[in-house]
Amino acid sequence: MNQKLIFTNLVGKAIDDLVDELGNPATYVIVDVNTAQYVLPTLTEQTHAVQNAHVITIKAGDVNKNLDSVQTVWKALHDAGATRNSVIINVGGGVVTDLGGFAAATFKRGIQVINVPTTLLGAVDASVGGKTGINFNGYKNEIGSFTEPLASIISTAFFVTLSQQELLSGYAEMLKHGLLENREELDTLLAYSVVYPIFDPERLLELLRRSVAVKQRIVEQDFTETGLRKALNLGHTIGHAFESLALRRQSPIPHGYAVAWGCVVSLVLSHLKLGFPSDVLHKFAQYVRTNYNAFDFSCDDYPALIEFMRHDKKNMTQDEIAFTLLADVGDPRVNTVVEPDDIRSALDIYRDLMGI
Amino acid sequence: MNQKLIFTNLVGKAIDDLVDELGNPATYVIVDVNTAQYVLPTLTEQTHAVQNAHVITIKAGDVNKNLDSVQTVWKALHDAGATRNSVIINVGGGVVTDLGGFAAATFKRGIQVINVPTTLLGAVDASVGGKTGINFNGYKNEIGSFTEPLASIISTAFFVTLSQQELLSGYAEMLKHGLLENREELDTLLAYSVVYPIFDPERLLELLRRSVAVKQRIVEQDFTETGLRKALNLGHTIGHAFESLALRRQSPIPHGYAVAWGCVVSLVLSHLKLGFPSDVLHKFAQYVRTNYNAFDFSCDDYPALIEFMRHDKKNMTQDEIAFTLLADVGDPRVNTVVEPDDIRSALDIYRDLMGI
Repeated sequence: MNQKLIFTNLVGKAIDDLVDELGNPATYVIVDVNTAQYVLPTLTEQTHAVQNAHVITIKAGDVNKNLDSVQTVWKALHDAGATRNSVIINVGGGVVTDLGGFAAATFKRGIQVINVPTTLLGAVDASVGGKTGINFNGYKNEIGSFTEPLASIISTAFFVTLSQQELLSGYAEMLKHGLLENREELDTLLAYSVVYPIFDPERLLELLRRSVAVKQRIVEQDFTETGLRKALNLGHTIGHAFESLALRRQSPIPHGYAVAWGCVVSLVLSHLKLGFPSDVLHKFAQYVRTNYNAFDFSCDDYPALIEFMRHDKKNMTQDEIAFTLLADVGDPRVNTVVEPDDIRSALDIYRDLMGI
Repeated sequence: MNQKLIFTNLVGKAIDDLVDELGNPATYVIVDVNTAQYVLPTLTEQTHAVQNAHVITIKAGDVNKNLDSVQTVWKALHDAGATRNSVIINVGGGVVTDLGGFAAATFKRGIQVINVPTTLLGAVDASVGGKTGINFNGYKNEIGSFTEPLASIISTAFFVTLSQQELLSGYAEMLKHGLLENREELDTLLAYSVVYPIFDPERLLELLRRSVAVKQRIVEQDFTETGLRKALNLGHTIGHAFESLALRRQSPIPHGYAVAWGCVVSLVLSHLKLGFPSDVLHKFAQYVRTNYNAFDFSCDDYPALIEFMRHDKKNMTQDEIAFTLLADVGDPRVNTVVEPDDIRSALDIYRDLMGI
C-alpha cells in the first residue's frame, strides 16, 4: 500500500500539510449536498486548500452513484481547468469517495486524490483498499477501479452530525474486523458503545486506527481480491441476502445492520461447521441484539434467503453457496461451502438467539 | 512493465497459449466493424480461444471512441456473464485497443486484456505504455487510465489489408523512435520502405520489435508521463497544429503524416536551437518528402499554427511554447521553450526543404 493514512481530528491542518507537500497545486473539492451543508463550512474555515478550491457538488445517495454524476464531475473538472497535476479532495461518505475516486482515477488517465471520509462506515471501510466505483445498469459497483488515493484523513470530528443509526452501521464493520483479529480486540469493541453516552471522539479514533489496521493487513496481502481479501466478506453474503429480502418487502435496512446480523448467522455456521467457540458466539449475539435489535423473518422466508445467497457475486460457482467462516476469532476460512440444510439450521438458531 | 510483448506472425497460437496458461477462462473478443470483416474470420479459424469467445462489435472510427460505445461494451460483458476471471481480447486498431482497454480496466474494477493490434500504428504506438481512453465532451482521450494489458501480440500478418496511407502513417512513429534511439537505427529505417515493393512482413516484424523496444525503455523510466516520457512527443506538438489547421480547412490529414512533417520542423528547430547535425536533418527531410509529400501552407498560416501550438495540452503553461527537441539523434531535450520568432524561421526552412 502506498497511500498515507492519517488519523487526526485536526483535519484542516492535515489537508494543508499534504497540499503543501505537493507544491500547492490547484485543488478541487467534491462533496454531496449533505456534506456541502454540514461539513464544508467548517473545513473552509480551517483549511487554505479548501478555501481556494473549486467545489463540485453532487447529489446525495447511492441512487446517484452513477455515470450521470461521474459525467457531471468530469465536465466540471474540465471546465474549471483541472490538469494532471491537480488534486481532488473528496469530502463525504462512501458515495462521494467511491464516485469521486472513480472520476479522479479516469480523468486525464488519473489525478491525485485526498479522501476525507465523513461517516464512520466510510472511515472504517472505504478509506483502505483502493476500491472506487459506481453502480451501472442496475448493478452495484459494476464499474470502477482499484486506485489508491494519495492519502485518507481519518477523523471522528464530523461524526457529531451523524445519526445513531449511521454510527451503529459503521461500527458493525469494526465488529467484523474484531472477529477477524483476536479475542482481545473483539472484547474491547464489545465493551464499547459507539452511541451516546459512551461515545468519545478520541477513544473512537484510537479504536478506528486499530480497526483500519486489520483491514490494511488483509488488503496488502491480496490487493485485487483473489483470495484472502474475501475474509473481509465475513457476514456479507448473509447480510446481502437480508438486504435483498428487506428491499423486496420495500423496507430497506442499513448495510451495517445487515452485516451485524449476517455476522451472527456466520458465527452460528462457524460453530456448526468449524467448532467456533459457543461462548464468543453468545456474547457477540447478545451485543448485536442489544444494539441493533434483530432482522425479523420466519421459516417461510428461508427459500428466498437461500436463493439470494446462491446469487451472491462473490460465489465461485452458482451451484454451491460459499461463505467466509471462522474456525476461531482471528482464524478465517474463505470459500467454505455450506449445504442448504446447514443454512436452515443456522437461521433457526439465529432466530432463537435474537428472540424472534 | 509487467505486460508480455509477443512478436510473432503465428497469432492464433500465441493467443491460445496465453489463454491456456490462464486456465482457459471465458474469453470476450472486441472488434470494430472493419476487423470483424477482415481479421476475425482468419483468427477464428486459427484460434480456439477466439472460436469459443463471445464477440462484441463496436462502430469503427475515432468519432465512436466515446462513452456510448464503452457502455455498449460494459452491457454486453455483463449480459454475457463476464466475471473478473474472464479475459478480453481486443482485435483492432487504436480505437479498439484504447476503448476496449478502458472498458476492461473499469468493468468490475478491472479484468485481464490481450491486445492484438491490427494496424502498424497500433502495433508500434498503442501496444506499449498502458494508455487506455476515450474522447469525452469534445476532447481527445480526456477519460482513460494507465492500465497495462496482460499481453500484446504484435504481428505484421494483418497488414496486407492496410492501405499504403495506413502503413506510412504507422511508420512515421517508427521513424520518430529511430530519431530517439541512435544513428544506426535511424539509417536502417531510412533505408527501408514500408510500402510495396520493399515491404516484407518478417523484416518489418524485426524492425517493429526494435522500435517497440525504444518506446518500452522510455515508458519504463516514466510510466505516468511526468518527464522523460515526453520525449515520445517528438514532432507531435507541431504535428497536432498541422492536424488542427487541416481540420479547420475541412481536409483532415492522417496522424502519422502530421507526425512525420512535425518531426521535420522539430529537427529544424533542433538545428537552430541545439545544433542538431544538418546532414541528418537533410536526409530525414528528403525521406519524408519522398514518401509523405508535404503539408502545404503559407506564411499567412503561421499565426494560426503558433496559436494551436500554444494550446497543446502537453505545454506546462499557456504563456510559453515548449517542444521536445534533439541535441543529436538519441539525445532528446524535453520541455525546450522556443520563441515564436524561431518557430516562424523553422516553418520557413521546412517549406524550403519540402519544396512548397
